[in-house]
Amino acid sequence: MKEEKVSIGLIQTTCSKNPKDNLYTQMGLIREAAEKGAQIICLQELFNTLYFCVDYNDEYFDWAEPIDGELVKSLSDLAKELEVVIVAPFFEKRAKGIYHNSLVVIDADGQVLGNYRKTHIPDDPGFYEKYYFTPGDEETGFKVFDTKFGKIGTLICWDQWYPEAARITALKGADILFYPTAIGTLPTEGKKEKKEYQDAWEIIQRSHAIANGCFVASVNRVGKESGSKFWGGSFVAGPFGQMLNQAGSKEEVLVTEIDLSTIEEQRKTWPFFRDRRIDLYKPMLKRMDD
Amino acid sequence: MKEEKVSIGLIQTTCSKNPKDNLYTQMGLIREAAEKGAQIICLQELFNTLYFCVDYNDEYFDWAEPIDGELVKSLSDLAKELEVVIVAPFFEKRAKGIYHNSLVVIDADGQVLGNYRKTHIPDDPGFYEKYYFTPGDEETGFKVFDTKFGKIGTLICWDQWYPEAARITALKGADILFYPTAIGTLPTEGKKEKKEYQDAWEIIQRSHAIANGCFVASVNRVGKESGSKFWGGSFVAGPFGQMLNQAGSKEEVLVTEIDLSTIEEQRKTWPFFRDRRIDLYKPMLKRMDD
Repeated sequence: MKEEKVSIGLIQTTCSKNPKDNLYTQMGLIREAAEKGAQIICLQELFNTLYFCVDYNDEYFDWAEPIDGELVKSLSDLAKELEVVIVAPFFEKRAKGIYHNSLVVIDADGQVLGNYRKTHIPDDPGFYEKYYFTPGDEETGFKVFDTKFGKIGTLICWDQWYPEAARITALKGADILFYPTAIGTLPTEGKKEKKEYQDAWEIIQRSHAIANGCFVASVNRVGKESGSKFWGGSFVAGPFGQMLNQAGSKEEVLVTEIDLSTIEEQRKTWPFFRDRRIDLYKPMLKRMDD
Repeated sequence: MKEEKVSIGLIQTTCSKNPKDNLYTQMGLIREAAEKGAQIICLQELFNTLYFCVDYNDEYFDWAEPIDGELVKSLSDLAKELEVVIVAPFFEKRAKGIYHNSLVVIDADGQVLGNYRKTHIPDDPGFYEKYYFTPGDEETGFKVFDTKFGKIGTLICWDQWYPEAARITALKGADILFYPTAIGTLPTEGKKEKKEYQDAWEIIQRSHAIANGCFVASVNRVGKESGSKFWGGSFVAGPFGQMLNQAGSKEEVLVTEIDLSTIEEQRKTWPFFRDRRIDLYKPMLKRMDD
């Protein structure tokens, strides 16, 4: 088969309290990724702010930005200049009182191809997301974006625990699933929990690559914020779940060249899509089948 | 929480050309598992025969057995005597010309609780299953069996690659998913493939434990037959995908005590079921969403 090489850049970093500073820092890291050859560059969840869902504080709603505002404009200009695709997850203000954990996909000519809004919203001690984020709805979830460098699907953090989200995005034609993430351990949790959580987090995402015969690229932030210590470990997995490249627990620009032609090779050898029993999957639409 | 201990026995072994011999051997191994404390004992896929789907040969249909025949009767008597639950996967003759890759679940009093018929049927070089097996249909797939020692769901081999099968079985209330299996490498495949395949096989099944917050118990045969070299490696995973116990690549009776009360603990800490977006999952019922 003819090779279809594409280079993915994942940017895992820390954030300060100042969204503008974070934007400039990460624009610098995008330049670094592009210099290293990255063609599709994905930032971490809520890339320009702290992970603020650690408590209930309505001042944080001021950090939300409209999709047609300055934040996206800056990235769009940069994408055009560098001729790279940028996946930028941010706190979106859709309307007065409607805020989303969202992302935009910007094509290599600077055009905003659209946005995806986090569909599965967590809510646990230290992760009070149901207070801040209206869940994505039918209009924006689940989606594939046909970029200059490949068809990509985008999901956000908690979505990663749901095989349904990965499957539907793959069925829409995604060759790479991107998972911007903010995951870590709470101060009450130790090494044992960290290992168990990170193992599970890697396994579930690698399983989406396996089940769907596609690439998975996951980006996680690093650093200690008031709530969690984020473990980084951003990675790219191949279409049989192979760990192709992985970052450590510090700031890192991880650039990985992949070959999209291996997707069809994989699906011919292990033809899972061929044998799906769509006649028997209706109970998937139930809360419990009790 | 009050502990709910149960002990699982997985029997991974070789098979000879003689189904009767294999039955007797494995009845001996069931005794051994029961002596070691196993309460729910699961045999490997097509437990009393070679993995015969390596070529097209209609003589193998003679190995199929009715569910109300001698084979199941022998195991039922044994289950009653030992007071253990037995999951017995076998080549089922349902009618003249309808054969299934099936299993029965026998309760600890010897009663046959029902059968499950493999839903996803592979068909690849050396695994010509679509020739031999009619796929399971709505009547028998997907199912949960309420046994003396716990609610168990059963799936067979190729089913393991499908998150849908695991999800639906868990939604029906399964606390443990059993995956009897026959998987190995062909003579043309080397160490690299073996590692990649076995990794993927473990990851996808551990991911079902994670996504559904339940236990997964997988049994694989061992030994070299005319087609494949089966890698064994039977294992039990906990409700966050933890590898609790794993067999090697030789004949082994693997007994593992688990605590079912950890399921609810896991689901309270990581409440994935709470947040499923059943309003958005209809595309799961499509072949492709193109």
